Amino acid sequence: MQDKSNILLIGCGGIGTITALNLETGGKAAVTAVLRSNYEHVKAHGFSIKSVDHGEVQEFRPSTLRKTIPDVKEESLPPYRYIIVTTKNYPDVPPTAAEIIKPAVTPGYTRIVLIQNGLNIEKPLIAAYPDNIVLSGVSFCGSHEVATGKIVHEDDDELYVGAFRNPHLSADEEDGAAQEFCQIYGAGGKCKPEFNPNVGFSRWRKLLYNACLNSICAITDLDTGRIQLADGALDLLVRPAMEEIRAAAKACGHDLPAELVDFMITMDPITMYNPPSMQVDVRKGRFTEYENIVGEALNEGKARDVPMPTLTVLYGILKAMQWRTKERKGLVEIPAPVDHTVKN
Amino acid sequence: MQDKSNILLIGCGGIGTITALNLETGGKAAVTAVLRSNYEHVKAHGFSIKSVDHGEVQEFRPSTLRKTIPDVKEESLPPYRYIIVTTKNYPDVPPTAAEIIKPAVTPGYTRIVLIQNGLNIEKPLIAAYPDNIVLSGVSFCGSHEVATGKIVHEDDDELYVGAFRNPHLSADEEDGAAQEFCQIYGAGGKCKPEFNPNVGFSRWRKLLYNACLNSICAITDLDTGRIQLADGALDLLVRPAMEEIRAAAKACGHDLPAELVDFMITMDPITMYNPPSMQVDVRKGRFTEYENIVGEALNEGKARDVPMPTLTVLYGILKAMQWRTKERKGLVEIPAPVDHTVKN
Repeated sequence: MQDKSNILLIGCGGIGTITALNLETGGKAAVTAVLRSNYEHVKAHGFSIKSVDHGEVQEFRPSTLRKTIPDVKEESLPPYRYIIVTTKNYPDVPPTAAEIIKPAVTPGYTRIVLIQNGLNIEKPLIAAYPDNIVLSGVSFCGSHEVATGKIVHEDDDELYVGAFRNPHLSADEEDGAAQEFCQIYGAGGKCKPEFNPNVGFSRWRKLLYNACLNSICAITDLDTGRIQLADGALDLLVRPAMEEIRAAAKACGHDLPAELVDFMITMDPITMYNPPSMQVDVRKGRFTEYENIVGEALNEGKARDVPMPTLTVLYGILKAMQWRTKERKGLVEIPAPVDHTVKN
Repeated sequence: MQDKSNILLIGCGGIGTITALNLETGGKAAVTAVLRSNYEHVKAHGFSIKSVDHGEVQEFRPSTLRKTIPDVKEESLPPYRYIIVTTKNYPDVPPTAAEIIKPAVTPGYTRIVLIQNGLNIEKPLIAAYPDNIVLSGVSFCGSHEVATGKIVHEDDDELYVGAFRNPHLSADEEDGAAQEFCQIYGAGGKCKPEFNPNVGFSRWRKLLYNACLNSICAITDLDTGRIQLADGALDLLVRPAMEEIRAAAKACGHDLPAELVDFMITMDPITMYNPPSMQVDVRKGRFTEYENIVGEALNEGKARDVPMPTLTVLYGILKAMQWRTKERKGLVEIPAPVDHTVKN
């Protein structure tokens, strides 16, 4: 049996913590997790997890906890075989993932695993690390950090892993890395990731959920249960948006079966009243991943002359909401208000 | 000089209070105002008004204050010549304006003045009161009740009055009533309402603002200043929606000049940071007037085969948000939540 894989995990919220738990449970990985706001709490108390797959887990700690990104050279650390990024992706708000992981990447050795949503997320990483394999993780996993260090995982962990194609690297080696990662992740037996040679298909498939349900829930502040109940929301918004994604995916060579529309709509049971990730982000005043989730889908579809009127409007709204968040966080300046009750 | 007109005013918030102030100032009207949540406060202290037209006005009280709709017969009251309705219009949430004003209407005598937004608002009133003239008031007036009984009026009062056509009544009499109302309203000199024989044009013209800016501000929670500043909001949302309204208006026989688009966008100066009515409603957890403002415009346009993709999406979002408000107010029931962290 081989030594444990040395794995760095960036982003230890709802999805990241379940990722760490699966990896550590399998015994084939030693996980270094980089925590931010929850570092002190988790160092003292560990994560407290209530999981549909793992049951109740108290005081869970990845092998190593860190507050900062490791600098492999400066700190003379052993190289990381995998860096898993589960953070949100905001290309319009620096720093990007490619910038963040820089000191932890060993060129030609480290595999970068993006368990993140949307399209074209690999492009800046392949550009920055042309000699490193970049893997795609598409996760369907309802898991939220409901309080600091407290994780509620109520929707089965389903993970599809494949390789983003880098023309400079061997496709066989890329696929081999994806398969090895599946073995390490699945060793604990609670979640068996599926090796997925057609990354594009999986990513477009998940966009049915993300570009449509996720974004519409974020805009309307209705969770995935309520969106199924609300007057006209499915017929006026969700289904038209999903059909646009199907048409754009088809134009890109990915045939998403019509049945997937209802499958995605009912994936979260009504009575779970699950707020999807973008809705949580909006509620918490955070940025949303609208550029990769909606914007890139639009770009790909429009480049192929696919009409996408619904997603165009959703994109415009999400972009306006992102500006609002930037303004609230002090990242844009606006002219001072003037008292208009007095005539000049 | 004639006696004062006996006028009933329903809805004494931002717009209604300025309406009462104009009418009382002119000396040609005695206004009975029906107040709800602010009745006790206004009875004790009057309205405190800071107005771009009227300056600072303290302790303003309409001639008569009431908590309930007068029952003219039961209470043996003199009949009302005008009933002005400035309340919001929610055809999807009863009771409707036609139901509310019933005990105050004297058939064949009372003129009903709807200073309300949107299209087809007169239909239920003409159906309920076929012998009464129904007038249209289209108001551009930035005025808000910022605290109980405290009105800030920061945008010039601009009012267009005309008659909704009732085929059973004389058009001359209808127009005469509209002109008389303009005289009564304008007698104070602070606001000169414009007699407006083409009600359809004025209402579609105002929809440029309401169906587009107002609804988009409500959805994005950006006021009319910020919507001019936010990335892409005008080009991706506001302008396309306005062009759809122009196309629908044209199909209905109303030619809204192209320059009106920019006129409406810049009508509220950026530095006013004015939250339009629907945005205020959403912020306060109230219902919005989306059915008359967006839904009826869509109905009219679609009936004439005008493509309105942007407004279709905005309508779907506003309808979903209305459902959310209904649910929060306990007007719809949803299935109880189930704990999905435990597998069956």
